[in-house]
Amino acid sequence: MTQATATAQPAALLTPEHLLTHWQGHRRLTRRMIEAFPEDQLFTFTAAPPMRSFGALAWELYNVSAYMLDGLVSDEWPNPDSSAPEPQDRAALLAAWDELTAKIDEGLPTIPPARYGEEKTLFWGVMLALDAALYAIDNEIHHRGQGYVYLRALGIEPPPFWER
Amino acid sequence: MTQATATAQPAALLTPEHLLTHWQGHRRLTRRMIEAFPEDQLFTFTAAPPMRSFGALAWELYNVSAYMLDGLVSDEWPNPDSSAPEPQDRAALLAAWDELTAKIDEGLPTIPPARYGEEKTLFWGVMLALDAALYAIDNEIHHRGQGYVYLRALGIEPPPFWER
Repeated sequence: MTQATATAQPAALLTPEHLLTHWQGHRRLTRRMIEAFPEDQLFTFTAAPPMRSFGALAWELYNVSAYMLDGLVSDEWPNPDSSAPEPQDRAALLAAWDELTAKIDEGLPTIPPARYGEEKTLFWGVMLALDAALYAIDNEIHHRGQGYVYLRALGIEPPPFWER
Repeated sequence: MTQATATAQPAALLTPEHLLTHWQGHRRLTRRMIEAFPEDQLFTFTAAPPMRSFGALAWELYNVSAYMLDGLVSDEWPNPDSSAPEPQDRAALLAAWDELTAKIDEGLPTIPPARYGEEKTLFWGVMLALDAALYAIDNEIHHRGQGYVYLRALGIEPPPFWER
């Protein structure tokens, strides 16, 4: 039944366009999580001290994604620059988030697909550029999942995981 | 500097071999999480009621992965069969986990790569087979991240996220 299409498809499991859609879908869900926290809990609450607040975790996610995007686009992988001050309110966090969303939309299509298959020396080791990109997404899913527990502990229903 | 290799690589960002490595790496980390819980907390503790225990979450992860593997290998996508009883202790959970690990190692290489680019009708909607596979992995990262909060709430240091 699938024989007809089987020969018409390339062996690429994941296209650059698909990676962009997948990444941005996850980032939209994380954005909804940032919005779901009460403003006075976003940067203060933790369900299990000494874990960081979801605002602090989201700021890490922003920084990791920005670092990966820059590396993939420029093919330069300097040590991450963490000098930007952590936002102190939701509006500032969301503004940075949305600015990066546009940069990802713009930058990702400019990356030569072959680059993903090359090994890069990041500050925490040598890895395929694809693995670096997947790491940014996986790390976002990981910490966002932690935010789900925080919201539940606050008695708030989180946005559905499957909605992107 | 990357010019030379850029033309030598195909446009496939993710190969079937890479998907297998990526998936099994995440499953190894989840297995370490299952081992990290005290036996008497694995199926009882939750950091935010009414959230499920990590044992129950891990059993969901097992079932989703088994369902996805069966669908990808057989290209048949019946409604998931949730009749298998949830394990009541760590040993039974790990035995099922390890059995599935071997099945994934065996089954994934038999899947025609083109299948991942085809739309499949799963019981929760139409999606690309690749998205179904990625969903299983993402769902595992998501719930495992929740388990990290549980462990922290129990005062236990979780295994490093980046170690696979």
